Parts: sequence; structure tokens; C-alpha cells
Amino acid sequence: MSENGVQPIRVALLGCGTVGGEVVRLLREQDDELAARAGARLELAGVAVRRPQRHPELGDLVTTDAAALVVRDDVDVVVEVIGGIEPARTLLLEALKAGKSVVTANKALLAEDGAALAEAADASGVDLYYEASVAGAIPLLRPLRESLAGDRITRVAGIVNGTTNFILSAMTASGSSYADALEEATRLGYAEADPSADVDGYDAASKAAILASLAFHTRVTSSDVYCEGIRDVSAADIAAAAGLGFVIKLLAICERTPADDAGPESVSARVYPAMIPAGHPLASVDGAFNAVYVEAEAAGQLMFYGQGAGGAPTASAVLGDVVAVARNRVIGGRGPRESAHANLPVRPIGSVPTRYHVSLAVADRAGVLAAIAGEFARHDVSIAAVRQTGGRGDGDGARLVVVTHEAPEAALSATVDVLSGLDAVRGVDSVVRVEDLGRSSPEVGP
Amino acid sequence: MSENGVQPIRVALLGCGTVGGEVVRLLREQDDELAARAGARLELAGVAVRRPQRHPELGDLVTTDAAALVVRDDVDVVVEVIGGIEPARTLLLEALKAGKSVVTANKALLAEDGAALAEAADASGVDLYYEASVAGAIPLLRPLRESLAGDRITRVAGIVNGTTNFILSAMTASGSSYADALEEATRLGYAEADPSADVDGYDAASKAAILASLAFHTRVTSSDVYCEGIRDVSAADIAAAAGLGFVIKLLAICERTPADDAGPESVSARVYPAMIPAGHPLASVDGAFNAVYVEAEAAGQLMFYGQGAGGAPTASAVLGDVVAVARNRVIGGRGPRESAHANLPVRPIGSVPTRYHVSLAVADRAGVLAAIAGEFARHDVSIAAVRQTGGRGDGDGARLVVVTHEAPEAALSATVDVLSGLDAVRGVDSVVRVEDLGRSSPEVGP
Repeated sequence: MSENGVQPIRVALLGCGTVGGEVVRLLREQDDELAARAGARLELAGVAVRRPQRHPELGDLVTTDAAALVVRDDVDVVVEVIGGIEPARTLLLEALKAGKSVVTANKALLAEDGAALAEAADASGVDLYYEASVAGAIPLLRPLRESLAGDRITRVAGIVNGTTNFILSAMTASGSSYADALEEATRLGYAEADPSADVDGYDAASKAAILASLAFHTRVTSSDVYCEGIRDVSAADIAAAAGLGFVIKLLAICERTPADDAGPESVSARVYPAMIPAGHPLASVDGAFNAVYVEAEAAGQLMFYGQGAGGAPTASAVLGDVVAVARNRVIGGRGPRESAHANLPVRPIGSVPTRYHVSLAVADRAGVLAAIAGEFARHDVSIAAVRQTGGRGDGDGARLVVVTHEAPEAALSATVDVLSGLDAVRGVDSVVRVEDLGRSSPEVGP
Repeated sequence: MSENGVQPIRVALLGCGTVGGEVVRLLREQDDELAARAGARLELAGVAVRRPQRHPELGDLVTTDAAALVVRDDVDVVVEVIGGIEPARTLLLEALKAGKSVVTANKALLAEDGAALAEAADASGVDLYYEASVAGAIPLLRPLRESLAGDRITRVAGIVNGTTNFILSAMTASGSSYADALEEATRLGYAEADPSADVDGYDAASKAAILASLAFHTRVTSSDVYCEGIRDVSAADIAAAAGLGFVIKLLAICERTPADDAGPESVSARVYPAMIPAGHPLASVDGAFNAVYVEAEAAGQLMFYGQGAGGAPTASAVLGDVVAVARNRVIGGRGPRESAHANLPVRPIGSVPTRYHVSLAVADRAGVLAAIAGEFARHDVSIAAVRQTGGRGDGDGARLVVVTHEAPEAALSATVDVLSGLDAVRGVDSVVRVEDLGRSSPEVGP
């Protein structure tokens, strides 16, 4: 019953699907080891599920009354792996109010309403941990919140959605279309029947909000995150990227921008497919793997890599949090609180500068390049490189690829609008952002 | 003077060289931010140096009497960045005995006598943190100790020495010899005038001891670590590796081996140059960068990547620990203690199984392969592949490359001893271990 006379820490689990089932298994299989690390035995106090008949292995522990479970006197820690906004939010707020520490993997809830949870945890002096909410098993939030607490993080750029990374990796490897790669992902179980949350970038946007909040000590919610998905990425875009030595990845980017003419020091959080240099460590992260690249003023470049989803990996992150929360309870303290002390404004996407790769179908005649270059100049978008292909006077027209220097999104959008209306432009085939992510080579000084 | 009425946490710094200077700079520049994160202001109480005249910027803070500084009543935390065994050990033991928490980057001391420090910290109920001791700025020890506390780590394989990685990367990129690559590393400041601690693997061995201790909850010291350096790695070895789709890296490998015929569950810690698959995430870690690859039962494959040395990166890790220790002081608790509860035996290198790449100069005549294969078989070392090159009857002899399946080190050594004496063998040119590190491709199921 006790480890060195210490009362056991009693855990209530909300949800017993893929992740919850693994949490139960790990709790049971590692009983002694977890006790040694937490300083107290970890005991399952109850498991709330919707269909108890599916969980005969849980015996008496099972309940359908989650609301009663989370406030039970004999519960110390509530672990939530049901996902979605409600009833998770109400259950967790009640648990926190009742003085239970909370461990959750619920990225959507944290990104939408993390502040309410953090305030409830503060009011009760208990812990709110959520390592599993971003990048599954990869230890990421604890390093951001604790290891880098003595440093200034300037950028976080992550591949945080395995479904879209699988699709883009497949398109890159085989030259297949988006539709074919999505079909393969669905067949192999990497994409859900309704893939929208993944392919439209919403899942990544929730994670971007959580990462930006932690990295910049500033409250960022999912509604602050600019979001584009990968549905419009074509095989031609990927081939064009490869021709330039780039790879297209769906990135969650969080950046701190120093004060400049456009405004005060600020942060931005955005999700979109972007070309990154093929030599960048993120470029070789393929398949369903996740990786998050971090730049900090003193630490320099860091990268964290691993499995971003799946029952066991996510449960590993959940259990790590449970052990930490239990240890905090044993010593009568709590872990680091939410910190929003920097409270920086979130920069609107229109004023966020990025480089762009613009592909245009143009008429094959003299003066076209001059007209197009003139429009870029008129909008103050500086051109880094131009390449024209096709165009042999056969009437098929030519293709013009323009890669810009950094320009605000608003200026680029205005340029593209005007280009579309030009007589010489038959169509704007694609606009893909280019992210250099600092040095493309990992070589730096000693 | 106080953050919300909380007394400041006062920091004594031992050493003010490259790392110490950056610690001072970061403490001063990030004053308010650190206070917000730690819950109390962090104040420098004193800096012990050998030559005070070199540090006019420290004013009254400077002292040559480190022994007095570490026990001063107004000091809460002692940060040690002088390195080496003495006087660091005595100073830190005195500090811990006096109730000061300790943050140290001293890998050699931790690997040799970490147990004494941990016991002293336990006896006083204070913290002992040392994130900066392995892989510089990369948040690694905290993830191992805390994030993966709910999981079972099975393997850690790291590139943890930037000097040797720079040399091997240069040899791989240019085909140059070890001597030329070392000369370049020295010229560029990546290698010290006496490079022995790096190139002979001792630095990596200290880190392997620290990693194995944390990963397996078992006390492993530097004397438990089998260690080979990179002096004998030749351009031919690197070319041979490339021909097989491998890259040679100096690895610190820590493995947990289940009980088997050879003995009970055990751990091993070893440092040597090894061939790893070119597609493995570690293979593309070039130059002075560090990376550590971790496998855990539930989390699967993880990798941590970043700068392993340098003043600012190391100071970032030190400051992260200082903030954590300060926060623990503010709440009146302490962080997770050393945990050696598993207390597994360390397996001697002779019984650790590895694959080998053996390159032999042999006589160019019939029956040679049969004789050699016979010796492998007689020692129970199974051959995975053989390739013969050269040998056109021109009297120059031929080259035979044998790649084995996994075999214990003792069996391989005995085989090589016998081979050297065979009439048909003109010389054993090289023996390089091959580490597959699990799947060579990062593709795994969802």
C-alpha cells in the first residue's frame, strides 16, 4: 500500500481508447519502477469510459460517471485522454477546482482554452501537465519550459502532424499526386476517414499555439494561428522544390520578432506548407515521424525527433507527466506554472515577412518578364531569382518561376492579385513559402 | 530586492572562463525574465577565479577563495564550471554539506564520483543538477530523468564529442586521413593542442557513464565504460563503410540487455568508432554537432540534436538548471533525486554482442576463403557477408572483407588473433564494429 510509508498517489483516467489502454498497461507493468521514481506507488482509482462492457479487464475500476470520478476524495491526479473540447473542459475544470492535479493530452482544448485551465490550476495550487499534447512521445514541452528557462527562444519550427508528413513524404519519394498519397495514407491507417483536421492544418495549428505560448511566455490561442493546409500542394510544386534543393514540409512556425518599423516586439504563430533546404535537419524527417527544431539565443540550434502519435508513445509522455505530478505531490510542491509574463502581441500574418516561390504560366513574348518584375517592384517585393522554362514560340506559352527575398504576406498577396489580372499572365499556378530556417547547414563554430 | 516579496536566490559561480563568462552575461541580461521564471530574483553572490585581475567587470564579486565562497551563509546555489576532479570535488562536497544546491557541468567528476555528490545532496536535501555535463545545450538529462520516467529506456546511442565528430565528418567528406583531419580540427579550434581526452574517447566515456546511470537507474562510473578512440580509423575504413552504405561515427552506447544464457539482465556502456547505416538519423549529424538517439519501450525512437559545446550553449544549459533549482528553493522542495533503484550489473565488454566489419590482406590463392571462414565458424562467429577484391595473380595479394552477424567481443577478438597467425593472412587491416541501431529507416507504423 505504501512506498516507504508514503501514501499512494491515486490516478483517475478519463478515456480508455488507444492511448488510455496503454496508460493502464504501463501503470500495471511498471508498478515497482514507477513507485521508485515517483516516491510513492501509483494506483488506478478509476477509469471513466462510455462503454464499460468493452473493458472487462478493468473490473470494478470502470465507471461511466466521469463527473463523479474527477472529484472523488480518493483521487489525486486526473489523466484525460478523451480529447475534444467538451466534456473534457468541464471535467478538467471541476477536477482542478477540487484540488486534483491534471495530466492531459488534449491539444485542441489547451490551444482553445489553456488559460482557463492554467488559472484553475493556479487557484488550487495544483499541477497542469500536457507533454503528450504536442509531438506525442517526444520530450519537448518540458525542455522548452524547464531546460531552456535560462535562455531566450527565438524560433520554433516543427513537423508536428504525422499524417501530413506521411503524405508529403510519399509525394516527394514517388512523385505521386496529393490525392494518391492521401489515399495511400488512408489505406495504411495514417489518415482518418475525414482527414480535414490533419490535412487542413488545424491539428498543427493547435500545437503551434501551445508551442508559441511556452516558448515565448505569452498566451497564444488557436485563433491567433494563421493556418493553411496541404490540399493545394501539387506534384509540380514538390518537383519545383526539388529542382532548387528544397523539400516541402507542413510546418508549425512560432517566431519572436524584435521591434522594428512595423511594430513592437511580437510573436507570430503560423502553419503552412513551406519549402525548406534539403540539407536542413527537418528535411530528412520522413513518414509519420515528428520533429521540432528550436533556435535559442544562447543554446543555438536544437532539434527533437521521434514518434508524434500512437498509443504507446503518447502513453509514455502521459506517464512521464504522471510521475512528475506524483513526485510534486509527495514533496508537497508543484512544478513550474504557466508563464505568460512576457505577454507579447501576436503579429498578424499580413505583416509577417517570408520568402515566396511563385510559379506563373505566362505568354511567350518579349516584355513579359519586365512587366512582371515591375509589379513585384511596385509592391516592394524584392526578387531573389527568376527562372523561365518552356517558350519556344509554339504558342504553348512559358513558365516563369520567381523566388523572392523576404516580404510581408500582405505585399505578396497584393502582388499576386495584380499579376493574375495581367494580360501577359495566363495563370498563377502556385505560391509556396520558402523558409530558410537559419543556416541550412548544421555546421557552426565551436 | 525581491520578486513578490520572495527573497532572491543567491548564486556563487566557480570559474569564469568561456562558460562562466556566458553564465554571468546571461544572468545579467535576462534579469527580469529569469526572475519571472524562477519565482525569485537570481543574484550573483560571488565568482571564484584564479586570476582576479582578468575580471575587472566583476568588481567586488570576484574572489580567489572558492572554499570560503561555497559555504557562505548568503549563498543558496553553487554553480561549478571549472572542470576536472580536484578542487571541484572537494568544493562541491563542502557546498552540498553546507546545504547549497549545486549545478555543475563537470562530466569527469560526475562520471568518476557522481555517487558521492548524489549522497551528499540527499543528506542535505538539496538539488544536484548537471544538464550541461552531457551534450552541452541539448536538453537531454532532464528528458531522460523526467519525461521518460514512465517508460523503460532500452538503448542510448550518442554522438557526444564534437571534436571527434568534426574529424570523422571531415574524413568522410574529403577522404582525408585521420592526421590531416586532426590538423584541420586543431587549426579551426575544434581540437585542443593535446587532443587525447577527445580522440581517445575519454570525454565520451564520461558522458556514457552519466547517460547510462540516468537511463537505467543504475550507478555506472567511467571505469565501467569500455573505451576506444578514433586514432586508428583510416581513410580506407571510411571508404569501406561508404561502399556498404554506412558512415563511421564515434558512439557512446548504453544498452540494457535482457537476461539470457550469458547472464542476468544487465547494462553495458561503451565508446568506440562504429559503422552505422547512412539512413539513420545519427548518420547525418555532421561537424561539431552532437546528437543522442534514445530507444524506449513505449516511446519508441527519439533523437535530440544540437550544439554539444561552446560557451553560450553550455551556459544555456547551466542557466536552465539554475532556474529549476531556484524554483525548487522557492517552493521549498527539490527536484527528482538520483535514482539507482534498478541497480543492474554492468556487462563486461567481452560478452557484449556486436556486429563486425573485418578487413584482411590475404594471399591470392585457392582455399584462403575456406580457411578464414573456418576460423570464424570455429569461434562461433557467424558471417553475414564476404567480399573479395583485388587478386589477379599479380602477386599483390587480395583483400577480403568479412561482415559478421552479432558476436560477443571475446569471440571476435579470439578469431582475429588466430587469423593474424594464419599463413594465408598477410595482415588484419582493420576491425570496425557495425551498429544497426534498430531499424535503419525512421519509417514505423502509426
